[in-house]
Amino acid sequence: MSGTRPDFVICIHGGAGTISRDTAPQRVALYRAGLAAALEAGQAVLADGGLALDAVQAAALAMEDNPCFNAGKGAVYNSQGRHELDACLMDGRNLACGALAGCTVIRNPIRAARRLLETSPHILLAGDGADRWAHAEGLDLVANQYFDDAFRFEQWQKACAADAVQRDHDDAKGTVGAVALDRQGNLAAATSTGGLTNKKFGRVGDTPIIGAGTYANNASCAVSCTGTGEQFMRHVAAYDIHARMTLAGSSLEAACRQLIDRTLQPGDGGLIAVDRDGNWQLAYNSAGMFRGVADSHGLFSVAIWED
Amino acid sequence: MSGTRPDFVICIHGGAGTISRDTAPQRVALYRAGLAAALEAGQAVLADGGLALDAVQAAALAMEDNPCFNAGKGAVYNSQGRHELDACLMDGRNLACGALAGCTVIRNPIRAARRLLETSPHILLAGDGADRWAHAEGLDLVANQYFDDAFRFEQWQKACAADAVQRDHDDAKGTVGAVALDRQGNLAAATSTGGLTNKKFGRVGDTPIIGAGTYANNASCAVSCTGTGEQFMRHVAAYDIHARMTLAGSSLEAACRQLIDRTLQPGDGGLIAVDRDGNWQLAYNSAGMFRGVADSHGLFSVAIWED
Repeated sequence: MSGTRPDFVICIHGGAGTISRDTAPQRVALYRAGLAAALEAGQAVLADGGLALDAVQAAALAMEDNPCFNAGKGAVYNSQGRHELDACLMDGRNLACGALAGCTVIRNPIRAARRLLETSPHILLAGDGADRWAHAEGLDLVANQYFDDAFRFEQWQKACAADAVQRDHDDAKGTVGAVALDRQGNLAAATSTGGLTNKKFGRVGDTPIIGAGTYANNASCAVSCTGTGEQFMRHVAAYDIHARMTLAGSSLEAACRQLIDRTLQPGDGGLIAVDRDGNWQLAYNSAGMFRGVADSHGLFSVAIWED
Repeated sequence: MSGTRPDFVICIHGGAGTISRDTAPQRVALYRAGLAAALEAGQAVLADGGLALDAVQAAALAMEDNPCFNAGKGAVYNSQGRHELDACLMDGRNLACGALAGCTVIRNPIRAARRLLETSPHILLAGDGADRWAHAEGLDLVANQYFDDAFRFEQWQKACAADAVQRDHDDAKGTVGAVALDRQGNLAAATSTGGLTNKKFGRVGDTPIIGAGTYANNASCAVSCTGTGEQFMRHVAAYDIHARMTLAGSSLEAACRQLIDRTLQPGDGGLIAVDRDGNWQLAYNSAGMFRGVADSHGLFSVAIWED
């Protein structure tokens, strides 16, 4: 790493929590390859002088399309054996946002969030309405079965047998997210998830909530969270990082440590964040976090455990 | 008013925006009576030494049951000629929260928010799932037509003819909310709404979003917002008041003025807030706000315009 401010930075996560260190090397390699591909997708946008907004969308899109991660293809099953997806995108230039909760037929929820951000006076659409809006907008729709995955199905059947709701980080897959600083100094954040295995009753977590799971503001930082959604909602986690930087003069690191080490409970999860000066944090209080970071100095790193 | 700290305070709003000063006196009297009845309901709880949480729920419940206000009975019509209700409740003692978005058959959404706050690991339920949960919990359900109101129907038909989405404060009715400080020093906030006339696609506004339209924390303040929901979401408005007080040492008044006069745009709406010391604010940048305040010193006041 260099001491000089990088021209661009991108950080990604593929969920808090981790897989056993005994996991077959082939499976570990799949996760690492998935993280690297998403990181490369975002990095390529930034290296070309593209927008942070486009970079985080590209990285999130890559993870939505990868069944390793609990977002898009490979999303977990709800209590009815279906998939309900949430996504959120925020542009730090103008605080424009788009978010969807509980959509079921939109192939790439992060693309839908982008369309909403660009074209709608509304920020958040939920449930059947989100799907109907996407249809009216001509977005790419799929049958809900498109999101099916054998590993996820097995996980759901176990949860049903135990009548349990699993958090997305109780196992090897999780919410995905990306934050970036581009060459023009713009910040952006993206988060996408399939929520909780065996979840009931249209529960909405922190992912599509501006200020909870996702926030970006060129004046401070961009943040994407993963973990026990209700904890990030209750503590308005992503906006709290921004507030500590702008109101208390905290560094990005101090603001993130405060949240992860003191405000939240051990095991709640983690976050990725980058600030306007190119500082970045991959912080978590869970056993691990699927994560990666790349910058204009040539840094390119992915990790799962505390290596 | 007295210079000494009151033992308890309750503030309510019945929506930003206003009615014409030419409105028939009988109709103005109905609004004033509705505000006074809600304020009395909350005040009675606090005078008896009850919890802030119970007081704000009682005040919100009174306005949900009053067709003058856009919450519960008398909620606006969506594009399908039905009613979709949102509500949120937060307890400043422990940051416990409960919220519902887009529910259609729950007689009193604020009661459902209380049940969720007390019994569920989840904070926010949306759409059909929220209704199914309420059914499973044995809450009081009604046919969606229960929420019908002749004035609202006429308003909707006008909006349909113009193909317009009306904000809740483009007319004489609006979102309702309450914030309170009780004799034990606890703070709580409640917000409930029927959303936007002729709204489409399951749009969720700021009301059920912790930190946007509703927030309470015994360490600082309790806040309930009303107005253009997306603006309050984008700026994480309610939590911003808390953050300015706890991180920048702002007074409640300074934090509210910053938000209403500088962060938000003229016409966006307003908020009610009370802090741990019994200071309170009824602040808005719209033409008016249906509002009221009562305290242990005998203050009891309701207003619509800038009197």
